[in-house]
Amino acid sequence: MASVFTKIIQGELPSYKLMEDKHSIAILALDQVTLGHTLVIPKIEVDHWFDVPTEAFLQVQRNSQILARALQKATQCPRVMTATVGFEVPHCHLHLIPAWSMADLNFARGVRRTPEEMKSIQERIIGHLHEAVSK
Amino acid sequence: MASVFTKIIQGELPSYKLMEDKHSIAILALDQVTLGHTLVIPKIEVDHWFDVPTEAFLQVQRNSQILARALQKATQCPRVMTATVGFEVPHCHLHLIPAWSMADLNFARGVRRTPEEMKSIQERIIGHLHEAVSK
Repeated sequence: MASVFTKIIQGELPSYKLMEDKHSIAILALDQVTLGHTLVIPKIEVDHWFDVPTEAFLQVQRNSQILARALQKATQCPRVMTATVGFEVPHCHLHLIPAWSMADLNFARGVRRTPEEMKSIQERIIGHLHEAVSK
Repeated sequence: MASVFTKIIQGELPSYKLMEDKHSIAILALDQVTLGHTLVIPKIEVDHWFDVPTEAFLQVQRNSQILARALQKATQCPRVMTATVGFEVPHCHLHLIPAWSMADLNFARGVRRTPEEMKSIQERIIGHLHEAVSK
């Protein structure tokens, strides 16, 4: 059965999309640990991140640097943390979490935000992508 | 002042080294969250991971896939988690943590191991690197 992320990639489920290319997609996480919490996901459905083919894996990583710069501008967070965990959805994904302290690396803090909050942070992040790419 | 990682890279401080190339080094973490906990570090001393020049950043990522495959073989862990946090040493580094559950993503669990334990896990990981590279 297709993973929830494959369904999002195929347009069968909605998402707040930030970026998409041949190999990957970036969306806002459904449960936001901090506002702006983003997932960067290879399109290929692979469970373990270290099994993702190199080209797709490196595209995820390249995009994560660009997205993190935009996240920092959009949220004014002092750091952007990353994590790959893998005990829930068997389709690997990289978390980018705007962070003010170590305590923000805590998935139990994830909460649903209103559609208005999600749309607003999506627009702010996208608005900073151009300068983040050209850095 | 040079970071603790720069001192390790320059050979001024000891470490349990797993891998080294032009752009990066991989060592066992001083405080082991789980046995085998590894740091992959760009040689260039940059605070935020998203500011590391692309070539060095992607080399860190390429090596992290190889190291994670070797870690899984060496420790028989079901997953290898990754994290970049950044609130302590201002020289970015990617954590690779052998994991049996979500609870292993907890830096408060980091503990010093004996030199014998460190040498033994270092040898086991290095022993699996060749097959991990050629995968």
